[in-house]
Amino acid sequence: MPALLLDVPVADVLSRLTRDPAGLVPVVAQQWDTGEVLMVAWMDDEALRRTLSTGRATYWSRSRGQYWVKGETSGHAQHVREIRLDCDADTLLLKVDQVGPACHTGDRSCFDAGLVAHTAPDTSARDHADATAASDGRP
Amino acid sequence: MPALLLDVPVADVLSRLTRDPAGLVPVVAQQWDTGEVLMVAWMDDEALRRTLSTGRATYWSRSRGQYWVKGETSGHAQHVREIRLDCDADTLLLKVDQVGPACHTGDRSCFDAGLVAHTAPDTSARDHADATAASDGRP
Repeated sequence: MPALLLDVPVADVLSRLTRDPAGLVPVVAQQWDTGEVLMVAWMDDEALRRTLSTGRATYWSRSRGQYWVKGETSGHAQHVREIRLDCDADTLLLKVDQVGPACHTGDRSCFDAGLVAHTAPDTSARDHADATAASDGRP
Repeated sequence: MPALLLDVPVADVLSRLTRDPAGLVPVVAQQWDTGEVLMVAWMDDEALRRTLSTGRATYWSRSRGQYWVKGETSGHAQHVREIRLDCDADTLLLKVDQVGPACHTGDRSCFDAGLVAHTAPDTSARDHADATAASDGRP
């Protein structure tokens, strides 16, 4: 597998990374071309290093307590095309090329079967009345 | 604001929800039409209830320790069009109509400025050699 091309040194990323008490950050995996959100998983530093060096999405499985190369057993690999860190450095976004279904249920996305609520397009009109200015306090 | 139309009873969602030790679940906010991943924030049960009843994305701010109606001060609201729960019920996906920038930096997405690594399109060829069968152990 090809390693990813680094836009910033790994050490810089790791020094900025804000981990949870278990040393993990949530990772959003998104199909690079369709924009579909496929799943959310978790990485520690080593999982990120392995992902960078192999180009294959590698997570930390919280339930199994081990590294998990996505698709290693199923063949449903995630070939990583881009990795991004968010503004407060506590979440990663992986743009991937997902082979087959991302979900263990066989669904393309882990969110496919989970519709909780929706609004009809004509009731979702934006309400700009409360639009003021200034910055939004992103925590 | 219009309430969202429920596809499943709230009680069913809350009974399935797997929260972290702080009672929170990560929430991916995605622009409904472009598919852009805008940000990741956190909800507890009450934040989810408020989001469902108002149609406005309402999070729990871990840094400020309070509820946070996205755009309340900035005007950069998220009008929710759809809420989905993932297969293991520990992550929510909100498809939203984002007013203005989602990020406190003024960027449209909280991931815009955070490019860590990438691969050139011609080096991201899929390697199907390891594709076998069976299910992928999604933790």
